[in-house]
Amino acid sequence: MNKEYNTVRTTSSSEAPDEQPFLPINPFAEPITTMSTTNPIRPGDDDMIDIDFQNATTDRSSNGVMNVDLVNTHYDDFQTIDWLKDLMRDRFRHRLLRTKSYQSLFNKLLMYHDAWSGWLCVLLVGLSAGVIAAVIDIGTNWISHLKQGICLNAFWLNREQCCWASRELQYDNVNSEECPEWFTWPQVFGTYRKGPGEYLLSYIMYIFWSTIFATFAVLLVKVFAPYACGSGIPEIKTILGGFIIRGYLGKWTLLIKSIGMMCATSAGLILGKEGPFVHIACCCGNIFSYLFPKYGRNEAKKREILSAAAAAGVSVAFGAPIGGVLFSLEEVSYYFPYKTLWRSFFCAMVGALVVRSINPYGNGHDIQFSIDYSVPWSSFELLPFILLGILGGLWGAFFIKTNVWWCRFRKNSRLGQYTIIEVVCLAIITATIIYPNPYTRMSMSELIKRLVSQCRVEDMIDLCDYPSAQFHNGKIKGSIGLAGSGVHQAIWKLFFALIVQVILVTFTIGVKVPSGLIIPSMSIGAITGRIIGIITEQLAIQNPSFILFRHDCSKDENCVTPALYAIVGACAFLGGVSKMTVSLVVIMFELTGGLNYIVPLMAAAMTAKWIGDGFVRGGIYDAHIELNGYPFLDNKEEFNFTTSAADVVRPRPEQSLLLAYLTQSGMTFLEVENLLKETTHTSYPVVISRDQPYLVGQILRRDLQIALKSQKMQRFRLSSNVIQFTSSSEAAVNSDYEVDNQNEPRFTTSSEVIRIGNLLDQAPIIVTDQTPMETVIDLFRKLGLRQAFVTRNGRLRGTITKKDILRHIQQLNSRNTETTYYDS
Amino acid sequence: MNKEYNTVRTTSSSEAPDEQPFLPINPFAEPITTMSTTNPIRPGDDDMIDIDFQNATTDRSSNGVMNVDLVNTHYDDFQTIDWLKDLMRDRFRHRLLRTKSYQSLFNKLLMYHDAWSGWLCVLLVGLSAGVIAAVIDIGTNWISHLKQGICLNAFWLNREQCCWASRELQYDNVNSEECPEWFTWPQVFGTYRKGPGEYLLSYIMYIFWSTIFATFAVLLVKVFAPYACGSGIPEIKTILGGFIIRGYLGKWTLLIKSIGMMCATSAGLILGKEGPFVHIACCCGNIFSYLFPKYGRNEAKKREILSAAAAAGVSVAFGAPIGGVLFSLEEVSYYFPYKTLWRSFFCAMVGALVVRSINPYGNGHDIQFSIDYSVPWSSFELLPFILLGILGGLWGAFFIKTNVWWCRFRKNSRLGQYTIIEVVCLAIITATIIYPNPYTRMSMSELIKRLVSQCRVEDMIDLCDYPSAQFHNGKIKGSIGLAGSGVHQAIWKLFFALIVQVILVTFTIGVKVPSGLIIPSMSIGAITGRIIGIITEQLAIQNPSFILFRHDCSKDENCVTPALYAIVGACAFLGGVSKMTVSLVVIMFELTGGLNYIVPLMAAAMTAKWIGDGFVRGGIYDAHIELNGYPFLDNKEEFNFTTSAADVVRPRPEQSLLLAYLTQSGMTFLEVENLLKETTHTSYPVVISRDQPYLVGQILRRDLQIALKSQKMQRFRLSSNVIQFTSSSEAAVNSDYEVDNQNEPRFTTSSEVIRIGNLLDQAPIIVTDQTPMETVIDLFRKLGLRQAFVTRNGRLRGTITKKDILRHIQQLNSRNTETTYYDS
Repeated sequence: MNKEYNTVRTTSSSEAPDEQPFLPINPFAEPITTMSTTNPIRPGDDDMIDIDFQNATTDRSSNGVMNVDLVNTHYDDFQTIDWLKDLMRDRFRHRLLRTKSYQSLFNKLLMYHDAWSGWLCVLLVGLSAGVIAAVIDIGTNWISHLKQGICLNAFWLNREQCCWASRELQYDNVNSEECPEWFTWPQVFGTYRKGPGEYLLSYIMYIFWSTIFATFAVLLVKVFAPYACGSGIPEIKTILGGFIIRGYLGKWTLLIKSIGMMCATSAGLILGKEGPFVHIACCCGNIFSYLFPKYGRNEAKKREILSAAAAAGVSVAFGAPIGGVLFSLEEVSYYFPYKTLWRSFFCAMVGALVVRSINPYGNGHDIQFSIDYSVPWSSFELLPFILLGILGGLWGAFFIKTNVWWCRFRKNSRLGQYTIIEVVCLAIITATIIYPNPYTRMSMSELIKRLVSQCRVEDMIDLCDYPSAQFHNGKIKGSIGLAGSGVHQAIWKLFFALIVQVILVTFTIGVKVPSGLIIPSMSIGAITGRIIGIITEQLAIQNPSFILFRHDCSKDENCVTPALYAIVGACAFLGGVSKMTVSLVVIMFELTGGLNYIVPLMAAAMTAKWIGDGFVRGGIYDAHIELNGYPFLDNKEEFNFTTSAADVVRPRPEQSLLLAYLTQSGMTFLEVENLLKETTHTSYPVVISRDQPYLVGQILRRDLQIALKSQKMQRFRLSSNVIQFTSSSEAAVNSDYEVDNQNEPRFTTSSEVIRIGNLLDQAPIIVTDQTPMETVIDLFRKLGLRQAFVTRNGRLRGTITKKDILRHIQQLNSRNTETTYYDS
Repeated sequence: MNKEYNTVRTTSSSEAPDEQPFLPINPFAEPITTMSTTNPIRPGDDDMIDIDFQNATTDRSSNGVMNVDLVNTHYDDFQTIDWLKDLMRDRFRHRLLRTKSYQSLFNKLLMYHDAWSGWLCVLLVGLSAGVIAAVIDIGTNWISHLKQGICLNAFWLNREQCCWASRELQYDNVNSEECPEWFTWPQVFGTYRKGPGEYLLSYIMYIFWSTIFATFAVLLVKVFAPYACGSGIPEIKTILGGFIIRGYLGKWTLLIKSIGMMCATSAGLILGKEGPFVHIACCCGNIFSYLFPKYGRNEAKKREILSAAAAAGVSVAFGAPIGGVLFSLEEVSYYFPYKTLWRSFFCAMVGALVVRSINPYGNGHDIQFSIDYSVPWSSFELLPFILLGILGGLWGAFFIKTNVWWCRFRKNSRLGQYTIIEVVCLAIITATIIYPNPYTRMSMSELIKRLVSQCRVEDMIDLCDYPSAQFHNGKIKGSIGLAGSGVHQAIWKLFFALIVQVILVTFTIGVKVPSGLIIPSMSIGAITGRIIGIITEQLAIQNPSFILFRHDCSKDENCVTPALYAIVGACAFLGGVSKMTVSLVVIMFELTGGLNYIVPLMAAAMTAKWIGDGFVRGGIYDAHIELNGYPFLDNKEEFNFTTSAADVVRPRPEQSLLLAYLTQSGMTFLEVENLLKETTHTSYPVVISRDQPYLVGQILRRDLQIALKSQKMQRFRLSSNVIQFTSSSEAAVNSDYEVDNQNEPRFTTSSEVIRIGNLLDQAPIIVTDQTPMETVIDLFRKLGLRQAFVTRNGRLRGTITKKDILRHIQQLNSRNTETTYYDS
């Protein structure tokens, strides 16, 4: 036990400028006696541990006690993390590992394992995310078809697979398979004749199964994993932004979300499963990171894995690895070091490949559509594309406002207590409404697939009812003439599907089941796009000499492909809701696989974002972050405040609150204990003295508590003991110079001096009180700070924490939303 | 003129803690008398201007004189820029614009123009980069063919275009066109008979034209624009990292580089024109940014445009907009705000579209190859792909070491004085060597195109001499049997081409002509890849039962496509040289257009990077940055130092140098003038007093000089006047409280007091001397700082500048290259 009973109060401490002459050479340099390099996290500082921690817990996060636990970070639930310190801790761990690696072969292998562990971890994440996604895809497909019937020979096959080998394969008017091997529920019950009775029976079975699935999903979520509801992207943004939500990425959440998602999607609710894939992949990332202490026990490093996992999530959802990486970079990641770019790409790639290899024909994975239109787009079509962008932006604004309003209502009213009943009712209503219309009855991803497909020779569906169409190479080419009655009917059906989906999705997103809104948005967009596409097509055919069409459309040539409009619409509507830009276009590009259509997609996404930004700032994910009050400091937004750090610093001068601080040498045990009792800050500034409030360093509340506790267990009559926050190495260096002083102490006190300076972090982040808030915010965002100290002319004025900044931003925004943002 | 003759020395200045009792409430708060918010860059601070600047230049960059010139940044050549201050200046400008916009319609329009100007600017950059690239492509193609002959009917056509309409089109053994309309030089001179004479004449003409073109290129560069040489990417990285090189992105450089590039490439020198496209696009960015003062006069904002321009440069070079954006993000950009991502993508997209629309058939733009191989790759092929990666890494290391050695030799020896002769000799040698071999005689991009193409029915070239090949759908399918003698010959020719290119490129990159190394690297890689591909193919055919091939290759089926190996090789070798990762794979993906080949490309690029990193850290661009000693603080590298700010701070304690500083109230005019004379710092710290070295703020040298100059012109006997660095508003607030003091001044001095506190920037960046260097570097990189002040317990210890940090990194690296880097 290396206690240090230092009864000498050295008067030559460097922090008392007035008592001490300056060296003539450099008036600003500290006397050489104190030029020690007391970086507390340097290896070889083991001798700095002055007090005994044997009786205390070994789970500590301070820099000063690095040698007790190098890796583990301890944060409480709902705390913000300190990236700077965590990364520093990791560097130290790595340095130690390297130093050790020269000692033995085993340590060398350990180091190689450490260097590889990041890659290994993302490989595992990619593999597992891919497998889970594939399983969910297949499962959803099967459960979905179960609503309508069953493959009696092999119940584990869905309709498509069931009819695959059938000789009597037929297609109905929306291109769904029909075959004798596939039994609809009326057929199972013995009703083979088509008629009202059979229809009613189907209808009831459809509603019945929908309700069962939805109830199952909500019960699972409610009972086992409340965090499994929703899309999870707002929470993941917050977690990646440096916040702790324990259990949000746990294995139960993973399991329940996967199962719940299959059920909720299969129930026919207007929700998608692509957003939740991001959550699922992040769960995998979190779980696998615990295999590698480097990541599992360091929250900052863990977020590198989670960033890669988010990329894999999008990648497995859309088969778009590059889009996934850009999504992670643009949308969810907060702190994205460049080296994780490559690793994220690898992770996303692995995920995409696994999905593809499990589902080689893409039949389980619906939203991959390769476009192979016969006619290129003409420049006049930019007009309808921009119109789609405008509609997408309006839809986004409408949806965000309504959905947030409804979610807030649910939160604040008694409705919030009846989550299960809400879901059950919603399922019954949804099933009742969507069954009669074939375009809503099919799953949304199936619908999107139909809408973005060009009409072909073999298509007998009503959307392709062009009586005078001439087919070329299997696709429509040349004059296709007027639309037949089938197309007219299809437009009406689509229009009703649009209305139904718009209304239902607003009330569905936010209920307590796993629910994404990417597919609903795309579906609504695709419907709108296809309708506008057909209208444009018919206009161009009927008025070939109109000034817009004259240049590109000749009489014999079809110049408009309505299916393209569906894709552009999907892009625009998704863009309006999510406000994604580059990643959206790249995802759509990877889905469609052609550089030719990037311009329409860009035009639509850009317009949608601009229009949408006019009504609502930020996307639906940001709106939900705000709704839930998560402490998320947006790292994309540019602020333009006229305030400075002095306007944010705590304690506020007008509040007449005391600033909680420690003095370096003059506090008694009792005073420190009282301070800890009265305040709840996570860290305390240490200053020279009450008269000289110059910042020396900071000390974590947790460390201080542990130190006090361990002292308390060893001694009696502590209250009047003086605690000094000076590091021992500094004292040691000082003592070399101050032999005289130590030999004849200036004064002796009756109380002991306890020195716990090794807990002192002498590298706090300091800003002056005149620093503009933009700079302070930049500092917090880019370094990932938790708090900074504010000084004026070297004197401590107070602290600023991340939550102070968030509060300040909120205040300014609510005061004047228009003028506080920087909109160029 | 609002001079302030303040003869009162206020004793209640907030900076003298000892003379003043603390308020009981919060001992750390400044007295309320000094609680003014003197943020110097706040609007409405116009009254802060104390001294008259009418006689001084109006081109100032201090925050204190914001109202004199809001936009312009003044930096000298080869200075580092201060992002933080520049961005702050832009925010202030924007705020002013918005405030004004409520006043009149014109101002409102101005604001809209301002908001749009970024998009407008990148649109112009994309358009111009696209046009220039297309012109260069077409021009190079034409000049290139001029070496061998001329289209007598229409001299402006190249051979391909000349033979287009010909009825007697033939192909020689490397698939080049031959037709009567195209006259080779011997034919022009009347020698129609094939024979040694004709060959010799062709040979001589080839050497003659090569020499002419190369001489022209080097003369242009030498006489008009010395900055036009090389690829420009190292310099652009440095410029984007916050460095000023005047004229590097000017219009002369643009013009000369464009012309020089056409000539140098056409001369047959082993260099490419894809790297220089980045430089050219950045020149466009720089030139167009001057149309918009927001960007043109603010160096930090200008870099946003340059980032987008760099993306457009890669985009026009490869037709890969996404790859371009990722290249800009990963490789060249330093400070890449997320909002520029979208804009960069737009810019890259516009560039790619322009190139495509000018060159619709891609005949001028050679390196776009769409792969449509008939056989997918099998998993055993990963072995040769990884082998290619290893070779690529080795090549990269070899090339970087040799090239840097040669460039250093050129720099330090007398060879550096004979740049023109060097180029001429190189051109003659190159032309002499490359003419006899048809694979080197054709341009490198043509060669790459051939190598990555699968053999087709119509291909009569020796590379496709498979006597027993069966063609399916026009492409080789099924058992292709053993290679014929043509293939054997081709392999030998390719092997010699490989040797020639490897040797020549090492000596070529770095001469005083515009030269990129992307195409040479790809070419060398493609040759190696094709050779290895053919070897693998033949092995698989001859040993179909070998354990590796047994699974994937049946007897009747061809399982190896040598052309794919060429692409993978190109990717690996380029990766080895440039150390690009994601952007490289995405560029190759966009070039080939298939997700199927991403895995081979990734495997090769990854292996190449890892192998290469074992020998040389960083890519060729970093090596050239180091060679030229540019002050570039790498923002991708992670450092792991054990040093802290105290080890870097200037002045060094051991150097016994004085720290240059100003005191807030106690310096005479003469003292300040002497300080300016004796030191050359760009900014000086201001402290309270000599006895109390607590940092108050900083003041720019330039501002101080101007202030002193203007004072000098107005007064006599200045030397003994006292200069106070206190802002007038602070004094005004003080004066409200100190009416008594002002009415009866405590003491009068014989000298006047000049107050120039408005120049004082009270928001300097401060770090404590115990801050680990990793944190300091992070701070500098992420905030784009130029300098920071180091304090200990509030007392100023010195300054750290960006150059100090670079010097420190260099020292540590040279001391122990192995252990200072962080390699996970």
